[in-house]
Formats: sequence, structure tokens, C-alpha cells
Amino acid sequence: MPASPIRKLVPFAEQARKNGIKIYHLNIGQPDIETPEIMLNAVKNFNQKVVEYSHSAGNESYRRKLLTYYNRFGISLNFEDILITTGGSEAIETAMMCCMDPGDEIIIPEPFYANYNGFSVQANIQVVPIRSYIETGFALPPVSEFEKLITPRTRAIMICNPNNPTGYLYSEEELQSLKALVQKYDLWLFSDEVYREFCYDGKKYTSVMHLRGIENNVVLLDSISKRYSACGARIGALVSRNKDLIATALKFAQARLSPPTFGQVAGEAAVDTPDSYFDTVKKEYVSRRDYVIEALNKMEGVFCPKPSGAFYCIARLPIDNADKFCQWLLEKFSWEKETVMLAPATGFYSHSGIGLDEVRIAYVLNLDSLKRAMHCLEEALKIYPGKTANSSAMNTAGHS
Amino acid sequence: MPASPIRKLVPFAEQARKNGIKIYHLNIGQPDIETPEIMLNAVKNFNQKVVEYSHSAGNESYRRKLLTYYNRFGISLNFEDILITTGGSEAIETAMMCCMDPGDEIIIPEPFYANYNGFSVQANIQVVPIRSYIETGFALPPVSEFEKLITPRTRAIMICNPNNPTGYLYSEEELQSLKALVQKYDLWLFSDEVYREFCYDGKKYTSVMHLRGIENNVVLLDSISKRYSACGARIGALVSRNKDLIATALKFAQARLSPPTFGQVAGEAAVDTPDSYFDTVKKEYVSRRDYVIEALNKMEGVFCPKPSGAFYCIARLPIDNADKFCQWLLEKFSWEKETVMLAPATGFYSHSGIGLDEVRIAYVLNLDSLKRAMHCLEEALKIYPGKTANSSAMNTAGHS
Repeated sequence: MPASPIRKLVPFAEQARKNGIKIYHLNIGQPDIETPEIMLNAVKNFNQKVVEYSHSAGNESYRRKLLTYYNRFGISLNFEDILITTGGSEAIETAMMCCMDPGDEIIIPEPFYANYNGFSVQANIQVVPIRSYIETGFALPPVSEFEKLITPRTRAIMICNPNNPTGYLYSEEELQSLKALVQKYDLWLFSDEVYREFCYDGKKYTSVMHLRGIENNVVLLDSISKRYSACGARIGALVSRNKDLIATALKFAQARLSPPTFGQVAGEAAVDTPDSYFDTVKKEYVSRRDYVIEALNKMEGVFCPKPSGAFYCIARLPIDNADKFCQWLLEKFSWEKETVMLAPATGFYSHSGIGLDEVRIAYVLNLDSLKRAMHCLEEALKIYPGKTANSSAMNTAGHS
Repeated sequence: MPASPIRKLVPFAEQARKNGIKIYHLNIGQPDIETPEIMLNAVKNFNQKVVEYSHSAGNESYRRKLLTYYNRFGISLNFEDILITTGGSEAIETAMMCCMDPGDEIIIPEPFYANYNGFSVQANIQVVPIRSYIETGFALPPVSEFEKLITPRTRAIMICNPNNPTGYLYSEEELQSLKALVQKYDLWLFSDEVYREFCYDGKKYTSVMHLRGIENNVVLLDSISKRYSACGARIGALVSRNKDLIATALKFAQARLSPPTFGQVAGEAAVDTPDSYFDTVKKEYVSRRDYVIEALNKMEGVFCPKPSGAFYCIARLPIDNADKFCQWLLEKFSWEKETVMLAPATGFYSHSGIGLDEVRIAYVLNLDSLKRAMHCLEEALKIYPGKTANSSAMNTAGHS
């Protein structure tokens, strides 16, 4: 498994820190938002004498409680449709292993969450990327483009909605077009919807679980990590109305015995997180997003579409090579003893040579830090030796 | 992935419970022993505001603390040799994926922990079983038998020491013979040593980490689940002095982001568990073992070697078929509204048709419960319709 571009930067970040440089970490999806107290208190109040295995599919009380949670989004389920996983990571890996044989192909719009690659290596399956473009804000590629990639080995399509790394929120129309494709070719539709709470500007969230007529093809991949800023709890879920799939997934789940007990306790309590928590958090993310997008687009030669969900955006910078630039930011640059760490977008593209002038920015820091981070970026772009005239020659379309 | 014999029994157990029958669960390794308070208190005192991802290899503070733990067993390590995993399960799966390609072969003495099969299916590798026998108490098969099974695809040997499901504790001589084999064929040696605290009768525990000259071939698979009766914490470790292996394992670990935070907090605290805890627990297990082994061998036609480690034993019963018998115990039998659930040994053998008259018994209940459970078994054997004259014809050797 190759190391991702972001991981290659880690030693440079460590060295910068040793040199006394403060780094603003916009490179990872670790929110600074506090975990709801109701979750932390539930763990503090854990009063069993033995920390036992739970049911391999997760505690029934938690799975039943999640029905209430999903109902709020108009998703009606039975508790047997839900299998609790060790983070969203395990849900993705399990879905791939259950639904696909070694050598099978899964089509994923790129740029995509880099770890999908890792899980596909583990499952011995082949990722077939389909490109989405910064000019359209990374909208879903047309169905006709998907169809060109379908082979006898194609078994699944995977999306992330709202999207990491682009922040794009798929519309109902886009999901309906995927539904038609899934029906036509009888494919699995995996949807990673861990950011569903983070939809902005009054735009509507549509889940694959809302699509009628393809219930047996749909697998929802979920996690409490981002929702409640509880990444370390390692609690996710694999959700499907396809009973055969759940039965197969349970066999994999039984091999690893059970998901973490303390995390499940926190997750079950999380369902009662008051709305006010999300109101506050969403307001915070919207103000961060608005600030970051405006600041980026004001910089000379920079273009960043405004995302409607999650807490990421992808910006195009006037640079020769994002990997080099991100390393240079850590290795050579500082502004008032500070710098910024970004994720080169190359790590989110499966095709090589794409995204060379793009970076992902996670707006997971408070406004003051974001302001200083954006200022660092602006100053850096003024003096970066690999600066290009505008944005790189390859990608000027739509950059008006 | 086929369902294991024990899982096929679950619906019958549920029905028995509905019928008001009390079941003594000797079928699973879920100890009734209390988790050390020091661990539960550490989790209660968790005072971070955000439940963040840890380092993908686990918190450095925890890995450093584990050096003290391993030192107590004469195992000297660097903290970089340790990668914290989500339970021992993930350690096993990761070792297989890192060291072996699809189609490669791993030799494992059978009977073995049934989930090794599950992980080998996930890793697309082939388990090659080598038989150990009840007559020798399930001692390590001779090296000459291993050599007969070595092919160009053989990459690893895996042992569990002290052993689940047999309770056998490998001697230093047996480990030295494995070392010679590993050196001769340059194989990986995986060793699951999660029961190391549970060695009885003053017998010496030898770890694969004690073997000199094969440091780069050895992978220790570990877990806090049984040691501290903390199965639900989902914390284990993959330990190796082979730096390339750890680097590869870290890539898999990065894909799944991090092991559980709360479990790591509990695990780190666990290293300070007072010796008195283990003195008490070991004393308890020894008295349970002594009772169970004596009770079993007193029953007509039953043979059970006395194990020196872990909290399992395998008994040979005068029955036609262990799967049928274990189901019958739940479906048809009760004594004073009680019955016993056992694990058919067939699930621990990879060869089919072996272990038909053997069951695994986990002595994880208190003495009073064990007494009633053994009485149930004795009464059951008196009236079981598939009873054989003595033990089954195939396996009378050594049964004196």
C-alpha cells in the first residue's frame, strides 16, 4: 500500500514544530468542536463490573435507539438493518468484502476520501475512478460517463454525501440518476453519509436510503466520528435493508467479535444530543466556511467553489505542484513563526497527474486560527518559487 | 464464510431460555471475572473535551507504558515495536495481510481458535492445519510433520500459547524446535499469547519474543481482553522487532485511522494492575480447572487432559457427534430446569470429520455454577440417545 501524499508530509511537520514553528492543521478532519457532554457523561457513568463483549452487531439497545435518530431524517428502519462497526472505516471495509469478490470493480467519483483506496487494497478489489471537476464544484459526473466505465466486473458505485474532500452535497436529481444506473445494471450503491448533519444554506439532504425500488442494492456507511466530534470512539454503522447482506456482514463482524463497548455507550447517549448542539456547531462551520471561501477567492490566482456540506473545500492554487507546495510550506516557509498544513489534492485522485494545483482545506479550526492560516497561505503564495502565472495551464476552464 | 458450529447453536439457546431453562455458558471465553477497578476508574476520569483520533499506532504514552509490562516477562522492546490494534482480532488480520499475499499458506496446529479461519478468508490466504492430539494433551506436532506440509506457498506458522482451545502451554523445547523450522525455511512465526498470565502449576511461559536469532521473523499478537477481563475494550497489539513489518502494518492502521480512545485509556491504566489481582484470578482459575478436570474424568467414558494454561480444556465424550450433542443439550435436555452450553470441537478443526467426539469447555463461571454445569453434563451423558459404548471407535488410542 503506497503512503499517501499527506502522510509523506508528517516528518516535515514534525521538523517545523521542532524549529518552533506553529502549524495550523487544515490538513485533517479532526474537528476542534467539543464532544457533547451527554456522551462523555454516559461513559463516566458506565457502571458494569465487567467490560464484556457486546453482540457482534452491536448492543441491541443502541441499534434500537438509532431508529429514532434515522427517523429524524425520514429514514425508517428495523434495528436488524443496522450493524454497529468499529468506526466508519470498518463499515466501508466490510461492505467491500461482503459485496465484492477479489478483482471486482467499484466506480467512485474522484477526488475521493483517500482511505477508500486502502480498504479496496485490503479487499483485493479495483477502484475505477470517475472524474468530477472543480469547475462544477465537483458535481456528480453524468450517468453517460459512468456507463462508459461499466464492465462485467463492475459490482458497485460508491459516493460520499455530503462529500469529503469536496464538500459537495448531491442533489435529489443526482441521486435519482444514480438510482436509474443502479437499477439498470443491478449494482450495489454504497453511500458514506457521515456528514449529513452538516448541510448548509437550507439545501436538502437526500440519502440513498430515501430512494425507492433499490432497497436491496443500497448500503449506507455511517459514523459518529464527525457528527459528534468523537473520532476516537471508533463507532460507525453499516446499514442496509438487504437481509442477506446484513447476514453476511454479521459473519465478518463475528470474526472480530464486537465493536468497542465504551464507544457504543457514548454513541447510544449521543442520540439524545440536544438540537442546540448542532445549531451551534452548524453556525460555527458556516461562518468558518464563508470566511475561508471568501479569503481564498480574494487571493490572486486562487479559485475555490463554495461547498454546501461537510467541513472541507478544495481550492485551486496558482502553483506547479501541490505536493511540493505543501512540503515547502512546512520546510521552507513561515510567517511570524507560523505556517499552515494543507492536504495536497493528488492524494484524493486515483488518476495520476490530476489535482496537481489543488489542495483540500478542512475548516476545523476556530475563526481566529483560520484568519491567521489564510494569511499564511496568502503570504506563501506571494513568494513560493513554483508559482504559476495564474492557475496551472491545464485547468483554466471555468476559472473566471 | 461458513457459520461456525457454535453459532449454529445460538437459536437453540435462545429457545431454551424462552422455555425457562437456565443455561450455563461454558461455550465462550467471556470471563465472569471483574475488570480491574484501576481501568474503569481511568475511563471515568477521562477529562478531554474532544474524543480525538489517537496516533494510528496507538497513543505513544500507552506504547511506552507497555514496555514496562513486557519487561516483567523478560521481553525487552522499543515502543516503536508496538502497534496498538482494535482487539487481538485486528492484530491477527493485520499480520496476515502484511506478511502474506493472496493464496499464500499458513500452517496452524489444530484444533485452533475458529476465528483464525475468518481472518484468513478476509486476507485471502490458505490455512493448512497440522493435527495435534488429545492423547498428548495437544502438544506441538513434531517438526517432521510440519515439514511435510511446507510448499513454495508456505509463508507462516501460527501458534496460540497458552492455547485456546486446548489450554496447552508450549514448552521451551517445543518453541526451540519451531525456531529451527522458521530459520530453515525463513518463515514468519505468528504467536497469539493473550493468555500469558494464565500459566499454572509453576510451569514456565516461553514467548516467541524470547527466541534469539529470528527477531525479524517473529510477530507477537496480543490483547488485553482476557488478561483483564476487558473483552469489550477492543484493545490489542501487534508486536515485532521487524521494522519493515511495523511500517507496513502502520499503513493498514492508518487506513482505519486509530484504535479506540477509551479502550486505550483503560489499557494504559491496566499496566498498573496490582499483582494481587492476578494472584486472586489465577487461584480462582486453578481451582475451577482442577474441579472441572476431575469431574470430567470421573464421568463414564469421558477423557480430558489437564491443561497448564488459559481457561479452556477439550474433553472427549462418549458421543456420536458433538454438534448434535451440543444442540440436544439445548433443545431436548434439562436437569432441574438447567442445562449447559458447550462448544463442539469440530469448529476448531480445519479437517472435517475430526473432533466429532470432542467439546471445548471454558471454565469461566464460578465454582458453584461449574458444579451444577458438570452435573448437567453427567446426567445428560446418561440419557443422550447418541451415546457410544465408550468414546468413539476412531479415537480410543491413549484413552486409558
